Amino acid sequence: MKLISSISDFQSWRQACSGTIGFVPTMGALHSGHLSLVHKSNSKCDLTIVSIYVNPAQFTPGEDLSNYPRDLEKDLEALSKFQVDVVFFPDDKQMYPQGFSTFILEDNFSHRLEGKSRPEHFKGVLTIVGKLFNIIRPSHAFFGEKDAQQIRVLQKMVTDLNYNLQIVPCPIVREANGLAMSSRNIYLSENNREKAGVIHRSLKKAEEMLVQGYHSVVEIREVVIAMIKTEKQIRLDYFSIVDNISLKEIHDNIEGDILVSIAVFFLDVRLIDNFTFQMDK
Amino acid sequence: MKLISSISDFQSWRQACSGTIGFVPTMGALHSGHLSLVHKSNSKCDLTIVSIYVNPAQFTPGEDLSNYPRDLEKDLEALSKFQVDVVFFPDDKQMYPQGFSTFILEDNFSHRLEGKSRPEHFKGVLTIVGKLFNIIRPSHAFFGEKDAQQIRVLQKMVTDLNYNLQIVPCPIVREANGLAMSSRNIYLSENNREKAGVIHRSLKKAEEMLVQGYHSVVEIREVVIAMIKTEKQIRLDYFSIVDNISLKEIHDNIEGDILVSIAVFFLDVRLIDNFTFQMDK
Repeated sequence: MKLISSISDFQSWRQACSGTIGFVPTMGALHSGHLSLVHKSNSKCDLTIVSIYVNPAQFTPGEDLSNYPRDLEKDLEALSKFQVDVVFFPDDKQMYPQGFSTFILEDNFSHRLEGKSRPEHFKGVLTIVGKLFNIIRPSHAFFGEKDAQQIRVLQKMVTDLNYNLQIVPCPIVREANGLAMSSRNIYLSENNREKAGVIHRSLKKAEEMLVQGYHSVVEIREVVIAMIKTEKQIRLDYFSIVDNISLKEIHDNIEGDILVSIAVFFLDVRLIDNFTFQMDK
Repeated sequence: MKLISSISDFQSWRQACSGTIGFVPTMGALHSGHLSLVHKSNSKCDLTIVSIYVNPAQFTPGEDLSNYPRDLEKDLEALSKFQVDVVFFPDDKQMYPQGFSTFILEDNFSHRLEGKSRPEHFKGVLTIVGKLFNIIRPSHAFFGEKDAQQIRVLQKMVTDLNYNLQIVPCPIVREANGLAMSSRNIYLSENNREKAGVIHRSLKKAEEMLVQGYHSVVEIREVVIAMIKTEKQIRLDYFSIVDNISLKEIHDNIEGDILVSIAVFFLDVRLIDNFTFQMDK
């Protein structure tokens, strides 16, 4: 496991590589969700590169950029259990030098769901991932389905800008109580983490209703909101059912391939979760 | 000289390549300016790829997109005199498929000079060049200094987004009367093309004044405007002296490294020209 912090050092190393290259971009604070991506890359590619970089451009002002959990030593320890060829961890001065002024933005999917709550978020994500794709030049890039919209937006970027690589979506990894793994979960006390299980339970309930043939967004939303309300410290940001292809909001009658997603604040910690569903006609 | 119109065919061809790859992106209607870029690539790189694609995204509404000169056969004939390994000429359906929504933009240099007159222009240029860089994956890309600002904006994109390639600026090629070569020159009658020589002569006069030690933008502009006015069919869009690094407008006293540029309309044909100058203190 080679540790490289300089872009030019990485490029020198990269020049000598051949075979398929799996890339797992992370912001560190690695959990089993990240590690499942590394595992997937190991099974699919000849080489695996993990980047660790807390990208300031994807945080909205007022968010947790300065407090975002950072523990490189612990991350390296976790990665050492896998076949990781390079851990790439550049600093801000290299990634966003003074006068940085070029951005990648997606003008459709980006504005929905998370984009409404976090207006500059996807511009930041696309810009950093575009940069990393140019530096790493992977054949495959692995992303967790917890960030379902992020995967759609990145896939759109890859298609539109002709990046010659494949985005590989990987299933959400969950805590025992169903809470989706997230680096932000460590902000929660053990007790609150237990309570946060209601987020996933509310989605399971929504799924159950869909299986039973409920077609009304309004009815399903009511049930989900009622469940979330049982935890006084949790405030709903949005519960949304969208068309899984266009990401357009479905307001009433549910049909076809859908993405059901939720975002909440547990105290001041923002948590998201989702699932996809194919509604029979 | 291989002719490839499909992105995936190009990618298959590209996979088998090694060595340095020179790339000359064009919108066709090739003239000696373009051919000088091809020549430069031949002298610098193992392989040379020329793209021909009239990029709709860089035209401002009301501009000459539909009339823009297209003559593939003549272009291929001109290129056949050089060592061109591939001519890549994709169509709109491949480059901007329905629902295309990802763009690259530069948020500083883009807004100056040409960016003021053509608001979406550089977003279109960056997006297509970014796409072509991802498809072609060149080691060097050749651009003419006639589009001085375009070179700065592209260099910024390459640096900011970490494209692993070198932008090579190449000198302006001129007609006998000094008119900068441009595909748009063919819109002009022979007589008017002769008259358009005043554009370059006015810049030569500005340069002469700088050499003589004139430091006042106002004085130089007056002389340039007076010269341009001698041709009744020419209307000045802008004459501008900017800092050559920041591209910031110099309003009064000229110092240091500068870029002097001009844009005019000859009847409805937009023509540009420029030169750089180092002002002694």
